[in-house]
Amino acid sequence: MPQPCHIAKIPLPDPATLDDDIKDYLALCQEKLGLVPNVLKVYTARPPKFRTFTRFYNEMMLDEETCRLTKLEREMIAVVVSAANRCYYCLVAHGQAVRELSGDPELGELLMTNYRAAGLGRRARAMLDYAWKLTTRPHEVGDGDRAALQAAGFDDRDLFDVTDVAAFFNYTNRMMQGLDVMPNAEYHRMNRGVDQEPASAAARASASAAGSRKSRKARA
Amino acid sequence: MPQPCHIAKIPLPDPATLDDDIKDYLALCQEKLGLVPNVLKVYTARPPKFRTFTRFYNEMMLDEETCRLTKLEREMIAVVVSAANRCYYCLVAHGQAVRELSGDPELGELLMTNYRAAGLGRRARAMLDYAWKLTTRPHEVGDGDRAALQAAGFDDRDLFDVTDVAAFFNYTNRMMQGLDVMPNAEYHRMNRGVDQEPASAAARASASAAGSRKSRKARA
Amino acid sequence: MPQPCHIAKIPLPDPATLDDDIKDYLALCQEKLGLVPNVLKVYTARPPKFRTFTRFYNEMMLDEETCRLTKLEREMIAVVVSAANRCYYCLVAHGQAVRELSGDPELGELLMTNYRAAGLGRRARAMLDYAWKLTTRPHEVGDGDRAALQAAGFDDRDLFDVTDVAAFFNYTNRMMQGLDVMPNAEYHRMNRGVDQEPASAAARASASAAGSRKSRKARA
Amino acid sequence: MPQPCHIAKIPLPDPATLDDDIKDYLALCQEKLGLVPNVLKVYTARPPKFRTFTRFYNEMMLDEETCRLTKLEREMIAVVVSAANRCYYCLVAHGQAVRELSGDPELGELLMTNYRAAGLGRRARAMLDYAWKLTTRPHEVGDGDRAALQAAGFDDRDLFDVTDVAAFFNYTNRMMQGLDVMPNAEYHRMNRGVDQEPASAAARASASAAGSRKSRKARA
Amino acid sequence: MPQPCHIAKIPLPDPATLDDDIKDYLALCQEKLGLVPNVLKVYTARPPKFRTFTRFYNEMMLDEETCRLTKLEREMIAVVVSAANRCYYCLVAHGQAVRELSGDPELGELLMTNYRAAGLGRRARAMLDYAWKLTTRPHEVGDGDRAALQAAGFDDRDLFDVTDVAAFFNYTNRMMQGLDVMPNAEYHRMNRGVDQEPASAAARASASAAGSRKSRKARA
Amino acid sequence: MPQPCHIAKIPLPDPATLDDDIKDYLALCQEKLGLVPNVLKVYTARPPKFRTFTRFYNEMMLDEETCRLTKLEREMIAVVVSAANRCYYCLVAHGQAVRELSGDPELGELLMTNYRAAGLGRRARAMLDYAWKLTTRPHEVGDGDRAALQAAGFDDRDLFDVTDVAAFFNYTNRMMQGLDVMPNAEYHRMNRGVDQEPASAAARASASAAGSRKSRKARA
Repeated sequence: MPQPCHIAKIPLPDPATLDDDIKDYLALCQEKLGLVPNVLKVYTARPPKFRTFTRFYNEMMLDEETCRLTKLEREMIAVVVSAANRCYYCLVAHGQAVRELSGDPELGELLMTNYRAAGLGRRARAMLDYAWKLTTRPHEVGDGDRAALQAAGFDDRDLFDVTDVAAFFNYTNRMMQGLDVMPNAEYHRMNRGVDQEPASAAARASASAAGSRKSRKARA
Repeated sequence: MPQPCHIAKIPLPDPATLDDDIKDYLALCQEKLGLVPNVLKVYTARPPKFRTFTRFYNEMMLDEETCRLTKLEREMIAVVVSAANRCYYCLVAHGQAVRELSGDPELGELLMTNYRAAGLGRRARAMLDYAWKLTTRPHEVGDGDRAALQAAGFDDRDLFDVTDVAAFFNYTNRMMQGLDVMPNAEYHRMNRGVDQEPASAAARASASAAGSRKSRKARA
Repeated sequence: MPQPCHIAKIPLPDPATLDDDIKDYLALCQEKLGLVPNVLKVYTARPPKFRTFTRFYNEMMLDEETCRLTKLEREMIAVVVSAANRCYYCLVAHGQAVRELSGDPELGELLMTNYRAAGLGRRARAMLDYAWKLTTRPHEVGDGDRAALQAAGFDDRDLFDVTDVAAFFNYTNRMMQGLDVMPNAEYHRMNRGVDQEPASAAARASASAAGSRKSRKARA
Repeated sequence: MPQPCHIAKIPLPDPATLDDDIKDYLALCQEKLGLVPNVLKVYTARPPKFRTFTRFYNEMMLDEETCRLTKLEREMIAVVVSAANRCYYCLVAHGQAVRELSGDPELGELLMTNYRAAGLGRRARAMLDYAWKLTTRPHEVGDGDRAALQAAGFDDRDLFDVTDVAAFFNYTNRMMQGLDVMPNAEYHRMNRGVDQEPASAAARASASAAGSRKSRKARA
Repeated sequence: MPQPCHIAKIPLPDPATLDDDIKDYLALCQEKLGLVPNVLKVYTARPPKFRTFTRFYNEMMLDEETCRLTKLEREMIAVVVSAANRCYYCLVAHGQAVRELSGDPELGELLMTNYRAAGLGRRARAMLDYAWKLTTRPHEVGDGDRAALQAAGFDDRDLFDVTDVAAFFNYTNRMMQGLDVMPNAEYHRMNRGVDQEPASAAARASASAAGSRKSRKARA
Repeated sequence: MPQPCHIAKIPLPDPATLDDDIKDYLALCQEKLGLVPNVLKVYTARPPKFRTFTRFYNEMMLDEETCRLTKLEREMIAVVVSAANRCYYCLVAHGQAVRELSGDPELGELLMTNYRAAGLGRRARAMLDYAWKLTTRPHEVGDGDRAALQAAGFDDRDLFDVTDVAAFFNYTNRMMQGLDVMPNAEYHRMNRGVDQEPASAAARASASAAGSRKSRKARA
């Protein structure tokens, strides 16, 4: 089987030995998502980083009060940045998220391969052009690029968020690539337009509605 | 829906007006594969090119007498070249072929995103390293690269074939990208490890066994 | 002598052992062109591919009924794509073709080195800009590039042909580079504005006029 | 004056209106470092992100219990990643940190311009080669790169940390570049080998010794 | 100490054995600048080249009769070209020159890291955009780039000079990089806005005013 | 005619108005070479630069006392650097020089298009690999590259010269490209293996033998 069976190229602690709060977090993921994302297992090697990473991640990707980007938009940025960096882990994990949140299996494939081929509206196209450039030629980003975002309807607050998400996946991509982390095999089969995984979708919706910090998941 | 609904950015003829041999070819695709690959519809705009392209394609991808690469290996090269060129059409169509021929949905995703993350054997890795370099830095290919193939078990005949397939997808990628051809939506759902599309798989096997030129399909 | 004396880095069959139709084709090349292009000798290693390649090539480069690009325009695209890919074989062979068809030795050198330095008209410049981008950044080709071609007078049919030729030399370049094929030494001296090779020019004109498939030549 | 006088291209809140914990944090920076790094002022636009970012940053750059990289090594990675990305903010801020922690003004300039020109030992060179590649060609990072780190004395735990720091500055660089954040002008003059800023150095040492979370600074 | 202590990776002659005119030139540098730039020591290995290089350099960088670019503008081009090429020697030496001539330590750092982050006027920005492109993508420079210079107030004579300076540092960068030349350590500390090195500044002004060829310095 | 009829994109002085030494130099070129290289006409716009450029150029390319590279080797470097930069002027002018000095028209074409395709000996290959890397990735040149030159028989003195020539054509390429200088049309037809231009060859040999500075030519 071509996907290697390791989780990462570093040793990971025995789950039974983890601190209770981390155990609880992972159990909640299992319950709500049906899996514990491998990225989280990797961070269990460093409990303080586990806590900070999940907090950072959840504030960025799940917050619905401050950030006005939809969750789908954030996942779209994640996939396009990961495509630019050719990060297997993040493309698989966030490609699934795009399929789930959009209900559109084609969109996931389009963003994973070449977002320019998609029939995107002006807003999405401007957002992804910015994310692509910030990823591949960050030193050339200038006022013209910010103006293009603004012309597509993004204000200063949105600029912060688009930049934040695009920049952050330049972090997570490299973590996954540097440590050679493999995505959970389940992602491949989810939301392909064949079966609908209603349990998982429902779980996520309710988790999100609950708004509890614990119920949030990390997928970076 | 983000995948645009056009087949290509050029007008295509009414299928009813096509020459009989082309109609027959397309009908056979529909019967055996359950779809007519959009690349073929594009070439109906030029009947002589339709005939030559399908002949070229089938000799390259389906021949089992002269070429000693497995069909899966040829499709693996197709996907890796298309990943280097970020060709949406070919990644979708040949990603599906890799999933079908390998029975391994993960392999398709690995090759579409970053073949280096896959747990490939020496032979497959050498073959794909060569295809990647021939695609991205062809002017740097030299005796060292050919020696690396040889060291992995490829002889002079195989060198011709690996080169031929890798080079050819540099053609088809650019045809699809230049004309903005959309892949058939069915590919997205096929061979995801959820349902098994046994009909299609069987059809392909028998078509291949028949060895008749008519039953071959093009997917470029 | 710095041009290696091999034809390619794979063994080639004894010409005396070839099938009659291939022998005839090569003899006609010798008679009409004064040489057998080495690319054809390479394909004799695979007779079915020899037949399909020459058919593909001739339909693309020599057809005067369907394709409205001039033969010179097609050769110009061939040279510019080959320059982008730095393919020695194709630059020598098609550089000669540009010199012959244009009667302008400088044009060949300009396209081989940097077509932007040439004093090209709007049509030729748009065509070559498109070919360059399709070769070097195919995933960025979009509606704007197609519109630029259209603004320079190319319609949908021409778009197919410009794309086809530019894409195809991305195939032939890599075949020549992967197998390290050397061009016939004669090309270097032809059409330099010193001697005029009237025989060859006349031969080609008549061969072309004859319109017989046999009289067509491959130079890829 | 060529350094623009804005802090960032987004509006920032009136410092007087900030939450008390953030006010306290900034006051401590001013007291200990003699300045409030502009990156922190930018995050005051988003109080929750301020708290998470500083926690993430400080755990990564100042921790002395778990991470076995020296603080100087972490800053060296920061500078080399920022050089690859040509991030003005981070080069100025972390170039200063390298000068301060190493006591060597030349080292800062070397890492800012081209770390390959420095007379680095094997350990530092391996670490920075890895950081450069992870930044510029992350999809090509593989077992060979991890083995090179290991051969230079880095174990699995260090691999996590080198990756973490290198990856993280790919985040901060893009935040600074996307929002066009200007570094505090004071950095330019500090630790140039002309005056020694003993106050600041002492302050930092004691802050670090104190180990209190409050006394840590962010400089990302 | 990370800056290696060699001057270059080739052996240099004993200064006592140099021709008198070269000794005089170096003595004058020492007197006026307080140092003998290492680049000059390297050229002492080839006395005729020493003479021609310094003549070339001084005519280009110090001439005030024919060239209408200010000396600062020429140094700004030098730094930006050297940043594109990541040349440690030239960034250190000419970064110092920019700090001295502008009296603005920040400008030096901005140009060394990313001139796009600087608050440059239209003239300087156009000049540096041209220098960057001529350095990194010279084959794409065309009439549009020359027109952009003209629109920013540069005439044909200025075009010659901007091109000349930008092109020349593509020479000196590679000389320094090929021979691994280390800059004089003194540059690091000069003109940092901490101490003002009035002696050196005065010396340079008077040397320049004298207009004598001998008093000119090379810093390439 | 596609080669534009301008010499450069800047106005040039009336030859009748030039200083006598420059007139004499150009007359000697005409007499010995049969043409006045256009690069020299461009520098007549700046008489002091004309004198310094020709001195620099001749010391570098024609010296036979200090430099141990053959003239052909220097021209080979010139062509390979110009190929990397895709400089039309220098490829045409120095491609001709390679054809003349080597008596091998194929060598010129090989170096203009892709020197890796040539059957070069170890010495020439090492020299050109170094020149290519110094041109395209100067910041990555290191001790390994210098050692490779040494292993191929180049000593420290040769290192200076190989570096000098390779670096210098990075200057001249950009001068020609920035000012859009066209090469003399005569180059295209010379030394194609068709006619032998014995007069020119003899002239150059005698000019070189004379060793007089006046008789040297510039071709940059």
